[in-house]
Amino acid sequence: MIIRYFYVFSERPKIFPVDSLAEKVYFGNAMRLNDRIRQMIRDRDSLLCVGLDVVPEKIPPHIMEGEDPVFRFNKGIIDATADLVLAYKPNLAFYEALGTEGWEILRRTVTYIPEGILKIGDAKRGDIGSTAQKYAEGLFALGFDIVTVNPYLGWDSVAPFVKDEERGVFVLCLTSNPSSRDFQYFSSGGKFLYLRVAETAVGWNEKGNCGLVVGATHPGELERVREVAPDLPFLIPGIGAQGGDLEAAVTAGTDERGEMAIVNSSRGVLYASSGKDFAAAARQEAQRLRDAMNSIRRKKGVE
Amino acid sequence: MIIRYFYVFSERPKIFPVDSLAEKVYFGNAMRLNDRIRQMIRDRDSLLCVGLDVVPEKIPPHIMEGEDPVFRFNKGIIDATADLVLAYKPNLAFYEALGTEGWEILRRTVTYIPEGILKIGDAKRGDIGSTAQKYAEGLFALGFDIVTVNPYLGWDSVAPFVKDEERGVFVLCLTSNPSSRDFQYFSSGGKFLYLRVAETAVGWNEKGNCGLVVGATHPGELERVREVAPDLPFLIPGIGAQGGDLEAAVTAGTDERGEMAIVNSSRGVLYASSGKDFAAAARQEAQRLRDAMNSIRRKKGVE
Repeated sequence: MIIRYFYVFSERPKIFPVDSLAEKVYFGNAMRLNDRIRQMIRDRDSLLCVGLDVVPEKIPPHIMEGEDPVFRFNKGIIDATADLVLAYKPNLAFYEALGTEGWEILRRTVTYIPEGILKIGDAKRGDIGSTAQKYAEGLFALGFDIVTVNPYLGWDSVAPFVKDEERGVFVLCLTSNPSSRDFQYFSSGGKFLYLRVAETAVGWNEKGNCGLVVGATHPGELERVREVAPDLPFLIPGIGAQGGDLEAAVTAGTDERGEMAIVNSSRGVLYASSGKDFAAAARQEAQRLRDAMNSIRRKKGVE
Repeated sequence: MIIRYFYVFSERPKIFPVDSLAEKVYFGNAMRLNDRIRQMIRDRDSLLCVGLDVVPEKIPPHIMEGEDPVFRFNKGIIDATADLVLAYKPNLAFYEALGTEGWEILRRTVTYIPEGILKIGDAKRGDIGSTAQKYAEGLFALGFDIVTVNPYLGWDSVAPFVKDEERGVFVLCLTSNPSSRDFQYFSSGGKFLYLRVAETAVGWNEKGNCGLVVGATHPGELERVREVAPDLPFLIPGIGAQGGDLEAAVTAGTDERGEMAIVNSSRGVLYASSGKDFAAAARQEAQRLRDAMNSIRRKKGVE
């Protein structure tokens, strides 16, 4: 085994072996989530997140006919794409819709994701302090590294998710849906609410474990959010079925080094084929997306 | 059996028996949620909602020692208070924190709530359209009449919850927690975001099944929201442990007839005693709260 060494620029620069990153530990210390995201983007050479948003009606018939179809479908997608992705992101709504069994399928799916891949729980939770604490306990216990949170209730709803620097939160900033305009563009003194949220989240990043959700369907705004929050990781949904433009999203959403963006595709990968070749088709689409993103971000000057 | 009759003031006034309300049906037609809430407040003579936010560490030891303690605790609270309340409101965070089993305890708890009492799922969900649809399916399938929703994503996240006029949504407007000020007071041209949300929700009430969540910890603002939304039902959390003043909340939160407010207490009722008498103590506290609310609202001129 070849052990490579590199520097981490924190308060006390350290040299540590690359392989230990997978265990999130160096010299007995935890690694901050956002440092880990940057390193994983480099190591895995991918910005791609696959959204595990499974709808039984869209699962290929040959899978639906057997036992445990939703988990088997997820397993098929993960097996076919694990070497290509940076992250998987189940959206909890799709599992809750399956009732009690759905919660168990979610737990098993998160457990099945191999070590060294980010596990993002797209939960969009948000509640008062004592209740947000319960959400954080429940969601991190499922094995997620990152949970998405809605900012409407303010800091109280975010605090329990950023206590531990190894895990963290992505705060909804500007979402990819059409009615994101209803309130996110509410403006005060020429400043939109979504930019206020971005500024505030920069302050919430004290432990290096806070990021933002910014939809690919607003490339101009994505650029403005990047100006406000130059170092935060962005989760960027909305390419593919939702119509967001990949080139604009990657160019505007990555940081100056072409990093710190996690670009999600759900339906485009999961349902690339509705036949027996669904896994191979998902792999092909994942590879196409990863390569396209890499070639776009390399134009920004990444070696 | 005595059958009482009264009028429903809808497009076509109708006379129908009170008992059939429990089945949400009159002459084969569905009753709009908000009409039903008003009628239930009159029939049950109560504004009280008990929040079923169960934390295992606070369950009395004699219950914890047996099998299935969380459900048995909920059952004890429901049995002791069902004739005094208008609604029960489990907050989903407390069940999610218990893992897969928690989801099943939640389902059994909602099923156990007697007919004729409102079942409010305090979920504070909010997602893009296709995903919000999945949340609505999952939560209504659990048996809830009403689900709380976060407005940050706009109409898309609310629409699936108001399709059916018999069931509906309470939109977070001004929450009871300290950091509600972070974004809910963001102001445009002198208007705060929470008031814009209230105005918008009035427009979302086309089918008479949309309400608002307004915390008791802001009695002055509660009055302003009531001016903007004179007819909407309000869910008012934050009395008791959170410090909200009951008199101010009931006075400002009810409509001009002293109705359309659902006032929640969680910890104050659930943990009124930590001993073997927990159910009797919960009943005593529920009765005290119901009677206090009724005497406050009667000052507003309700017969």
